[in-house]
This record gives sequence, C-alpha cells and structure tokens, in this order.
Amino acid sequence: MSDAPSQATTAPQPAPPTPTTSEFDRDTVVSTREPGVHQTHLAPGWAIGKALNGGYLLAVLGRALRQALPHPDPFTITAHYLTATAAGPATIRTDVARSGRTVSTASAGLFQTDERGTEVERIRVLATYGDLDALTDDIRTSAGPPAIPPREQCFRSTDHPDGAAAVPEMGHRLDLRLDPQTCGWALGAPSMRGEMRAWLALADGRDPDPLSLLMTVDALPPTGFELGLTGWLPTVELTVHVRARPAPGPLRVAVTTRNLAGGFLEEDVEVWDTADRLVAQSRQLARA
Amino acid sequence: MSDAPSQATTAPQPAPPTPTTSEFDRDTVVSTREPGVHQTHLAPGWAIGKALNGGYLLAVLGRALRQALPHPDPFTITAHYLTATAAGPATIRTDVARSGRTVSTASAGLFQTDERGTEVERIRVLATYGDLDALTDDIRTSAGPPAIPPREQCFRSTDHPDGAAAVPEMGHRLDLRLDPQTCGWALGAPSMRGEMRAWLALADGRDPDPLSLLMTVDALPPTGFELGLTGWLPTVELTVHVRARPAPGPLRVAVTTRNLAGGFLEEDVEVWDTADRLVAQSRQLARA
Repeated sequence: MSDAPSQATTAPQPAPPTPTTSEFDRDTVVSTREPGVHQTHLAPGWAIGKALNGGYLLAVLGRALRQALPHPDPFTITAHYLTATAAGPATIRTDVARSGRTVSTASAGLFQTDERGTEVERIRVLATYGDLDALTDDIRTSAGPPAIPPREQCFRSTDHPDGAAAVPEMGHRLDLRLDPQTCGWALGAPSMRGEMRAWLALADGRDPDPLSLLMTVDALPPTGFELGLTGWLPTVELTVHVRARPAPGPLRVAVTTRNLAGGFLEEDVEVWDTADRLVAQSRQLARA
Repeated sequence: MSDAPSQATTAPQPAPPTPTTSEFDRDTVVSTREPGVHQTHLAPGWAIGKALNGGYLLAVLGRALRQALPHPDPFTITAHYLTATAAGPATIRTDVARSGRTVSTASAGLFQTDERGTEVERIRVLATYGDLDALTDDIRTSAGPPAIPPREQCFRSTDHPDGAAAVPEMGHRLDLRLDPQTCGWALGAPSMRGEMRAWLALADGRDPDPLSLLMTVDALPPTGFELGLTGWLPTVELTVHVRARPAPGPLRVAVTTRNLAGGFLEEDVEVWDTADRLVAQSRQLARA
C-alpha cells in the first residue's frame, strides 16, 4: 500500500481528449460568462441565402442549455423564431424553471445587437433535458424506417444541373443525398406530394449526437418545394423530441406536410439511425 | 341633424352581451392584476384522478396570454409540465418576447403556493399568437378527416360496465363518444394499436373555439391504454398548433402513438370540425 500513491503519480496519464476539429462542434461553441449568460459567435457557414439555418441555431441554443442544466440531452425543445439571426456575436440567456432528479426544464433567449446598438431577441426557446443513457431499453414502437433508396442511388446537391453554385452555403457542411422520388422540384417538376426524404451526414464525417439532431431536423429543403411553393418558408416554431442517442453513421430523414392552409404549413420529421431506431421526431410550423 | 343626438340617446340600446354560463368559460377566467401578472382560480371539475387535466390548464394559460398579447388566437403554444397542479388559486406571469404586426410571442409561467408557503412553478409555456380571421382562404391540404362511426354508434363514458362511477371528474364536463374500434382497453382487451378516436363536445353545449381546442387535444383517454399501459401517463410537454377557427358543433379527435420507447411515448392529435377542416394539430411527449 505504501508506495501505491507514488506509483499512481508516475504511471502514464491517459491522453487528454483530442480537441475536436469538427465544423459543427467548432461553430456551436458557447462560453458561459456567468450563470445564465452565455456568449457565442454564430458562423456564416450555416446560412441558407441570407438567413442562418434555424436548426443550426437551435443546436447552439441546445448547447447553452446543456451548460445551464444538470442533464445532458434535450428530450424536448421548442424554439420560436422572432427575427432573422445574422452571423456574428450573440448572447444567450438561460433561465432554469426546475431541476428534478430525472429531468430539468429551462427557457432561453438568443439576443443580438442591431445596427442601432439595441439588443434584439432573435429566438426564444423552452426545453426539458434528461439523460438518454438512463432510459430503459423497452421498445414497443410500431414505427418503421422510411423507404429510401441506397445512398449511392440518391441525388447529391452537386448533381444539380447548375452545379455547386446552386448549393446554399450550409449545403457545404452536409453530405445530403435526396431520394430521387422527392426532388422533382429541383428540376421544375414538383411531385405535389408533401414529402421529402434524404440521407444526411455531416460533410466532415462527424457522427451524429443529440445536439446535431437538432440541426438535422431542419436541414432538408422544405417540403413546400414539392408542393409547388418557392422562396423562403420562414419557421415560426420548431419542436424536437430526441428519443434515443443515434448510432454512428448517416441518418435517414423523412419529412411530411399534410396541411397547407391559411398561409401556414406544418413539417413533420422523423430521423432514423443506422441501427433502425427512431432517434428524433420534430414538427415545425412555417409560413408559406 | 339637431335632434339626432337626443334621438340616439333615447333609442333602444343593443342588449349587453349575455353573460356566459358555460362551465369552460367560467372555469378559465383570468383576472389581470397588473401588466404581466394574472390571477386565476383553477376548478376541481377538470380533474382526472388527483391531477388537473393538462389541456384544461393550457386553456387557462392560453387565456392569460390572450390578455397579455395584441393578437387573439394561439397559433402555436408549447407547455412543459413541471409539477402537479392542484385546484385552487394560481398566479400566471406573462413575459412578452416580441409584438409584431401579424404575430406576437410570449412566455408564461403558472405558479401556486405550496403547503410550506413557497411559490412553486407548475407549468412553463411559450406561445405565438395571431388572428385566425386574418389568414388566407388558400387550402391545399392532403389531410382528410379520420374514419369514425356516427356519434350514435360510439361509446359514451357512462356506457362503461361500471357506470358513471368509473368516469373521471373531467368526464362530466365533456360529451365524449369513443370509436368502438379504439376502446377495447375499457373492457380489458386493448387493440395493441396506438390509436384513439372520438367525437368530443363540451357537455353544456358551448361551441368550440381556439381556447377550447387547447383542452380538446388532451381530453381523450391515453393511446397508451390501447397499447396495454395502465395508470397515469404524465405529460412532459404538449405543443398545439391551432390552424383554423372551428365551426360550431362536435369535433372529431384522432390520436396516434407510433413510438413507445425508453419509457416515453408521443401522442399525435388531429382535431377536425363539422366543416371537415383540420382545426388543430398537437403532439405531446408523455412518460409511460
């Protein structure tokens, strides 16, 4: 026993965790300045046209909430998009409603300073976090993964007749492969069915996790394109349920719109992992 | 012109609005004490077992938000249920995030004082309101109403072999008629399909409106009962999209659960009115 401490201090130390080089991890970094106040720098690489993608922004907010709460994983998170968010610095304020044993709940707001120096709220969020690893293995689902051709038979954005120039900035962060059945819109012949299906991975090979799922549910082209709509379909509200920690490898994403009415439409999303588990469900309300 | 004013003052005045006697309207009254602070008295008539129904509570919060915001109708509202809410007095605090021309967004919290005199937050909410009457008439939906037998062929709660004693308190506020295909659970023979369908109206004949829809989406027995689960399935989170102002008359409500896994399940709800319009969509995450 007597020399054990000395041996412990001279034994080889485990290597420190490798600093991540993933674009997604680097572009969602959040620094907690004081309890409840977090700083971030939103990256231009996640823009679609002039606007930063709502799923990317939700992942940044999700990371701030992970730092503010005692549980690691977003079980359910809702964002209301108030004003368009620009690349650059932003402040996230978190407000914990309840910290329980198995779950905890908080609100958050993302703020930016506008050109007049006024702080403006861009997004408000409400979320409940838990620990996906603490869930039971009991699965009695009736849901099955979407029918989608193998990846090599799907269309990459760069297969578009206009080439890479037609790809929005965020497209370069993703390895997105659209089911040929649901990309008629790209060739001017929308199917008029409200469906979109794709394989999705991060372009740099980073594997999915609960935070990247928050981006994944908002990463496909809008189902509205297959209904003959064009242009930007701004998200009013997006709710994501993360149901399981995803296995490594590309995800299958299926989006459905049933009800386009009164100038609004919903988008229902399911995300399936390589182990055939339904890892996330989401619904958003968007303006047509 | 000279005697017109006198004539106007002596002419019969229009009758004042009839004070409502509807149970739902009486039990959701919210008094604004000062900007952002509202008082209510939660009614025991909306209990299921010991707990007040989450949909009823959402309607009360929805009414407070209507008073706090410049727009009348909940387009999208999300509630996270933190601790069980009891009948009796409660305070609702609202916090407006943004007031726009067509929509406005706010958070709200419902608080009660516990037996030790401490104020405890029961529910936190995030909502965007607008004006359903201002929406376009453009409808390009592919959704159709659920197949459900005529009301007179459906089961009322009082048809249960144990009679009215088996009906939860809230059941007396409702005229609920379950599709015989989805009430095997009540006779000890659940279908093991995650489906529940019913006609639903308020028992006192009050017609549906956007606020009563917030209650309607959480008023049916849990789909989990048809999957063989028993007991209370507490709601973690409930999001409702109100898509159109409902026409008068009984509503058709269809609930589906696809994914029961890891001790949680989702319930997807569609509400259809007598004009065959999809008036509300909701999803909740509940514990099994």
